[in-house]
Amino acid sequence: MAASRTKSAIVPGRAEDFPEWYQQVVRAADLAENSEVRGCMVIKPWGFGIWENIQTQLDSMIKATGHKNAYFPLFIPLSYFEREAAHVEGFAKECAVVTHHRLDVGPDGKMRPAPSAELTEPLVVRPTSETIIGSAFAKWTQSYRDLPILINQWANVVRWELRPRLFLRTAEFLWQEGHTAHETEHEAVEEADRMLEVYATFAREHLGLPVYHGEKTESERFPGAVQTLCIEAMVQDRKAIQAGTSHFLGQNFARSAGIRFLSRNGSEEFAWTTSWGVSTRLIGTLIMTHADDDGLVLPPRIAPAHVVILPITPKEETRQTVLQAAAALSEKLRSQRYADLPIRVEFDTRDIGGGTKYWDWIKRGVPIRIEIGPRDIAEGTIALSRRDQSVKEKVSLRSEEAVERLPRILQEIQENLFARAKAMRDAHTVRIDSRADFYDFFTPKNKEKPEIHGGFALAHWSGSPEVETQLKEELKVTIRCIPFDPEVRDEQPGECVISGKPSGRRVLFAKSY
Amino acid sequence: MAASRTKSAIVPGRAEDFPEWYQQVVRAADLAENSEVRGCMVIKPWGFGIWENIQTQLDSMIKATGHKNAYFPLFIPLSYFEREAAHVEGFAKECAVVTHHRLDVGPDGKMRPAPSAELTEPLVVRPTSETIIGSAFAKWTQSYRDLPILINQWANVVRWELRPRLFLRTAEFLWQEGHTAHETEHEAVEEADRMLEVYATFAREHLGLPVYHGEKTESERFPGAVQTLCIEAMVQDRKAIQAGTSHFLGQNFARSAGIRFLSRNGSEEFAWTTSWGVSTRLIGTLIMTHADDDGLVLPPRIAPAHVVILPITPKEETRQTVLQAAAALSEKLRSQRYADLPIRVEFDTRDIGGGTKYWDWIKRGVPIRIEIGPRDIAEGTIALSRRDQSVKEKVSLRSEEAVERLPRILQEIQENLFARAKAMRDAHTVRIDSRADFYDFFTPKNKEKPEIHGGFALAHWSGSPEVETQLKEELKVTIRCIPFDPEVRDEQPGECVISGKPSGRRVLFAKSY
Repeated sequence: MAASRTKSAIVPGRAEDFPEWYQQVVRAADLAENSEVRGCMVIKPWGFGIWENIQTQLDSMIKATGHKNAYFPLFIPLSYFEREAAHVEGFAKECAVVTHHRLDVGPDGKMRPAPSAELTEPLVVRPTSETIIGSAFAKWTQSYRDLPILINQWANVVRWELRPRLFLRTAEFLWQEGHTAHETEHEAVEEADRMLEVYATFAREHLGLPVYHGEKTESERFPGAVQTLCIEAMVQDRKAIQAGTSHFLGQNFARSAGIRFLSRNGSEEFAWTTSWGVSTRLIGTLIMTHADDDGLVLPPRIAPAHVVILPITPKEETRQTVLQAAAALSEKLRSQRYADLPIRVEFDTRDIGGGTKYWDWIKRGVPIRIEIGPRDIAEGTIALSRRDQSVKEKVSLRSEEAVERLPRILQEIQENLFARAKAMRDAHTVRIDSRADFYDFFTPKNKEKPEIHGGFALAHWSGSPEVETQLKEELKVTIRCIPFDPEVRDEQPGECVISGKPSGRRVLFAKSY
Repeated sequence: MAASRTKSAIVPGRAEDFPEWYQQVVRAADLAENSEVRGCMVIKPWGFGIWENIQTQLDSMIKATGHKNAYFPLFIPLSYFEREAAHVEGFAKECAVVTHHRLDVGPDGKMRPAPSAELTEPLVVRPTSETIIGSAFAKWTQSYRDLPILINQWANVVRWELRPRLFLRTAEFLWQEGHTAHETEHEAVEEADRMLEVYATFAREHLGLPVYHGEKTESERFPGAVQTLCIEAMVQDRKAIQAGTSHFLGQNFARSAGIRFLSRNGSEEFAWTTSWGVSTRLIGTLIMTHADDDGLVLPPRIAPAHVVILPITPKEETRQTVLQAAAALSEKLRSQRYADLPIRVEFDTRDIGGGTKYWDWIKRGVPIRIEIGPRDIAEGTIALSRRDQSVKEKVSLRSEEAVERLPRILQEIQENLFARAKAMRDAHTVRIDSRADFYDFFTPKNKEKPEIHGGFALAHWSGSPEVETQLKEELKVTIRCIPFDPEVRDEQPGECVISGKPSGRRVLFAKSY
């Protein structure tokens, strides 16, 4: 019951109303807000700071694997978009369409799209860029010597969304999309695998997200792909979030865009292409994974600030001394490095109540809070609190010791958040072998909390799309992937948990965002 | 005559056909290309690499002045856009307008914007974000304690363009737009000044662009601004390019968006706002300023690579030795730093002809080329060429000496490019005091080269917009700014060079892009 809960900063708590808790965490941490443009969000500085760290760090991994950044048009002519049949079918229902290139004043005196400036061909605002980038690749590719082409783009994309949710599902979102073209099928398959590994490593080591990786079933594939690989995270209501995808596109897009090359043996061939992306959805995933009933909890590597310095200035006469000591400490901390970068320090001198200020940083999820007041200065100490521990815990450390230990403490927090998330996920990933158990696992026990269910089920599936449709309709459960990870991969033959038909492997079932 | 020219890599040369030379430099350096989407460009990896360096370096200067990055919607509801009358009037003729949010199949079997998915309110693809960001600021601002708000956004914007030119004028372009709100007029004016200085410093020290700064006349002001400040560069055909602008918006946008706050004395007031931006146009400006008849010439600070290592492998038996020595040299160079960053080295092992490869890097404008072959290895030397010197010049240096001296040579090139551009500009910035001289200055002497004219004229102007209109029509000359720079600022009274009316100062006239 709510009344018996320890008081916490976010109301309701996770266990009470997970979706509402999520909204409140986003708001309390000042990460983002809905704009008055339907489905579009405003990413506020603290939220965007997380995205900037994701960008910088993932970008260097994408470059280290040989890719270069480029930029392609926002608009896709409708005729390009139509070239790949499955692709246009997959995206047609959620496209923003530009039809005019000028405004004028209508007969009612109001502004309107100028009838005289209607485009002869409508332009689709990119929901993804395979078709427009494919047409550039077609120009760039004459011979096998021009391959591989290894390109990445950081961009905004638009997929019209009627039920938006901040970070997880918005009409406009930010992402990176890699696009590559290769001489052989083998190379393209390898590329798709390699980039999935980059994503899994990034999720694990930077975001503290344990992920399963695997392949999507045909019904969940990217429109136009031959194979879609994904990483799947479990968040605290035990649902799955697809955190990144990597597609082997075969020659489908090469055929539709005309990416041809003269091969080593002199014949003309179509290239083999891939595409892969992660988006601002990662921010939603990490909030739902790490945040608690006091607000956001940030993995140090992607936190906009690693540590906040909070000067305690109870009396006017010691105020300057405290501020000077705190400023000096900030500088010392900034000269330390964590994960190959200088430590990011916020020194909060705002003239607001100490309690408000303290809780502000808790809700924003800063990994470490350091308080320094007149008594600390007299004793040469500071008080340090960690966001991965109880809000009440606080240790007193000698100032120099804190400076020296800080990088190690940050690394401990980083590892601790990952371990906590992994323990949670592993505890709720279960092998299920009967239909009854399966239905029971995914049926909430408490009707007032329809979110709470078993978690991830590893169960046999014969390959039938009908079973997928049935489970989606009856339980809102989908196959998240056919997993690769050694700890869950299971290719012992068995029987489909639903249909009883022969099955060659277990797959991963879950409810999802 | 063309026949007597020394052979150079770009045909035509600057003196023959400047606009065509520009297109050829962009192509030869593989910077960008037109896409099949009218007016939109594809920025290729080498061009985007320049933009990434501009972004990273300018971003840190923007942050150092207290601003934080955030992200706002791509789409602006038409009703928001209309709120500031001058603003909508200024942009209405070049807006891309989204009117539908779905595609369907029409009666002819072709895809079309679905009639059932027409938006009740059209959305304008942002040409700039004052209105949409203003509406967010209105929500964020209750009291003077919430001010200042200091925000920057890196984004794509769209201004429909019928005569596009790569980088200089494209329908979609990339930029940063700063938006700030302040408690007092004074603070906002200071902010607009401060950011203009940031731009001027960045242009000078990073891009090697000498710029005049000043204020725009009323007719050239940003739609909705009270004051528009700008930096203006002179490129090699002596035309001006506006390289950055900073606007003091007064309370205009605060009134239209409702950015109100409770002031220190308890009254409700409108905030004072600014906005300021630079775009991918900077890349066009630096090409036109520094490139020569052999192609691009890049200022080291923003070059995607500082140095290229070109192994010379005439014989198979020494090939491995050369490649190993070149690889070792690359590593040593990478461990050196220039302008606070590791030296960026390209090691070109492509299996193509040595001449083609050599010229490829000249055309791409890499500041330093280093060749290393079997003879060099025997003697412990390398051959070094600088892009700011003649293509034929080459010095032999001991390998260790080259490594040690490289940062200094890069700085020399950086300074040299700036000095060269400044000398050119200063030589063609002239005080003009008679109408006849003024017309003569701006009238090309050779009808076959209509681009060549005098340059920048510092002349008296009484403040009359009619004179501006006349000069625009008759000579295609505009007032670039009322300059601040001590070397050109001149507030001695005089007479308008055209109308003869009394004038309080000289202003800067030029033809421009």
